[in-house]
Amino acid sequence: MAESLKKEIDLSQYPHINKGLEGIVAFSSTKSFIDGQEGKLIYAGYTIDTLAENATFEEVCFLLWNDRLPNQSELDDLTSKLQGERALPESVLNYLQNTSKNAEPMAVLRTAVSILSDFHEVDADTSKEFRLNKAISITAKIPTIIAAFDRARNDKNIVEPLSDHSTAYNFLYMLNDEEPGEQAEKTMDLCLILHAEHGMNASTFTNRAICSTESDMYSSVTGAIGALKGPLHGGANQAVMNMLLDIEEQGDDPVDYIENRLANKEKIMGFGHRVYKTMDPRARILRGMSEQLSKETGHETLYEWSEAILNTMKEKIGIDPNVDFFSATVYYSMGIKPDLYTCIFAMSRVSGWTGHYIEQAENNRLIRPRALYTGEKDLDWVPVEDR
Amino acid sequence: MAESLKKEIDLSQYPHINKGLEGIVAFSSTKSFIDGQEGKLIYAGYTIDTLAENATFEEVCFLLWNDRLPNQSELDDLTSKLQGERALPESVLNYLQNTSKNAEPMAVLRTAVSILSDFHEVDADTSKEFRLNKAISITAKIPTIIAAFDRARNDKNIVEPLSDHSTAYNFLYMLNDEEPGEQAEKTMDLCLILHAEHGMNASTFTNRAICSTESDMYSSVTGAIGALKGPLHGGANQAVMNMLLDIEEQGDDPVDYIENRLANKEKIMGFGHRVYKTMDPRARILRGMSEQLSKETGHETLYEWSEAILNTMKEKIGIDPNVDFFSATVYYSMGIKPDLYTCIFAMSRVSGWTGHYIEQAENNRLIRPRALYTGEKDLDWVPVEDR
Repeated sequence: MAESLKKEIDLSQYPHINKGLEGIVAFSSTKSFIDGQEGKLIYAGYTIDTLAENATFEEVCFLLWNDRLPNQSELDDLTSKLQGERALPESVLNYLQNTSKNAEPMAVLRTAVSILSDFHEVDADTSKEFRLNKAISITAKIPTIIAAFDRARNDKNIVEPLSDHSTAYNFLYMLNDEEPGEQAEKTMDLCLILHAEHGMNASTFTNRAICSTESDMYSSVTGAIGALKGPLHGGANQAVMNMLLDIEEQGDDPVDYIENRLANKEKIMGFGHRVYKTMDPRARILRGMSEQLSKETGHETLYEWSEAILNTMKEKIGIDPNVDFFSATVYYSMGIKPDLYTCIFAMSRVSGWTGHYIEQAENNRLIRPRALYTGEKDLDWVPVEDR
Repeated sequence: MAESLKKEIDLSQYPHINKGLEGIVAFSSTKSFIDGQEGKLIYAGYTIDTLAENATFEEVCFLLWNDRLPNQSELDDLTSKLQGERALPESVLNYLQNTSKNAEPMAVLRTAVSILSDFHEVDADTSKEFRLNKAISITAKIPTIIAAFDRARNDKNIVEPLSDHSTAYNFLYMLNDEEPGEQAEKTMDLCLILHAEHGMNASTFTNRAICSTESDMYSSVTGAIGALKGPLHGGANQAVMNMLLDIEEQGDDPVDYIENRLANKEKIMGFGHRVYKTMDPRARILRGMSEQLSKETGHETLYEWSEAILNTMKEKIGIDPNVDFFSATVYYSMGIKPDLYTCIFAMSRVSGWTGHYIEQAENNRLIRPRALYTGEKDLDWVPVEDR
């Protein structure tokens, strides 16, 4: 080990490389708490079960942005601001209507959020109010972007957002050009609540890393969407559904299918989590929803397969399902296309991302870990003709 | 400390919070080595001085992507691929021509790179060749994006890229609609070499965090541009220039100006670095260039002010300039607008980002640190009317 290399890295840490930063505590945060042993998730003081039973997505947004629940007038104010910010600038609509119909919806969402900043004051102001208004504006527009692109790529008219109703209701309305029923609105709202926040996951962390350079909220959310897009993060719910559809298409038995994949050491999406050592509490809530919805909508087989897969995984390798496993069948039962699932995750998680952005910005430190250099040093230059 | 909180975090680490992940070694990497004590920077085996003296930006790209210098036929092949990939899809040109002329160039670059993915196979393939071709395609298009937007916002015709000449030459040609002189090409090429790679800085790290979810290279580069945009990272060179122009406008003495700002505990941009404890070797090289160029172009005053500021900072608080300090005056002497400086940084650094993307993807682990939860737990639900 050359003397100069020893100087680069902190000797007390050498040679331990914290791959994936696993177990490294990088922040203090009031946004959420995960007890992986007990399968418990808390958003700013309230368990996910309490919120799933009582809250609306709009209340959860307020909670994640302010660390407390709103009173009636604060909730009315937030709801009305969110409703007022749903419409998209012309240039975003132009992009959504004219880009490739085969583009990935998450890539399109990443671009559309990025375009939004061209028409706004980006980082002129560091007040909490300025940041809250940005969070509201971005959160309000994401459902409109997703629905507009889905309709445009299917050669359907783009449905303008309503100026009333909940985020969940309005999204389903814009997506289907049809007023949703009470049950559909409630299910969508619950999905938004369950995916809103989850500690220092890869997209939330990416969002904070971008914020830490004092970059703007559009940059942070754009980067977070890019991170969420990956199959090891938000992309997993789509992969779960594709697996179920694959089983259906092949006329396979789900238990055989899983056993074969395990025998071939293939990864089964929707299982396991770096933090939870028992069943993810969100998977527990979604499991109940999936059972009920699949019965109501004639997708019982999918639910039964899910249960069979869950039991096989538990029995063979002792791993529990995560949030992605049952959200796949819930969205499918609601008639939503699999390649929109990760977008719906983003539509919810933007509340957590922007809450973390505000928290990071108010107590910032540039995020910049180190790398251990393992290459050559001081090589001599060789002219190209002699190489 | 509640029992459940103790379970969430690794007890052996509690209560240490690695704010900013300072000193945490998160990766091994063959891309670059920084000796902060001795002011030394190495890209994949070669000191920055060796590369500044001998290499071209295209050779540096090959080096960062392959960890070795190319032979003549490999260099010819890369050069010709880069030349062949410069043109932009119609939809990107449409966006650049139609978005707000007041949009921030870095925000526009972030969006334009994000749009590129709509027209390409994004992550169908995990081979090195596929990833290299993506790296070439993105690296080749960034100069075209920057030049096209700058011309469009100034109501000038967009200049199509050349199918020959170096990256540096072609960029200056597209920006000014004029063949650049030999000295200008050489200076631009040197700036591209100097900014290409620099260890685990915030944008490179963001890029790896996004890659770690198995997301695609467009997502990673888009996120990295968002991180680089921040004033604590790439935005600093623009801030340095604005400071110098501010001094000029106020008719101030640069030494008084700096002393006043220091007395008011204001941050002076372009100074200090988390890693370098002596002068950044890139600042050293740029200092020489700045001196020469400013004399040649009649901007001697700016160079003299820079030296006066450098001496005042060294004397008063003992801090050395970083890469941003002299790159500002170099770009200014070349007639480039200050709000494009960070874009030029991105145009160069994309080579490092994509090199790190390939390195991360080939030995991946999801990047996900932890946060210490400091909020309330198990609060009881209170109906909105009782809050």
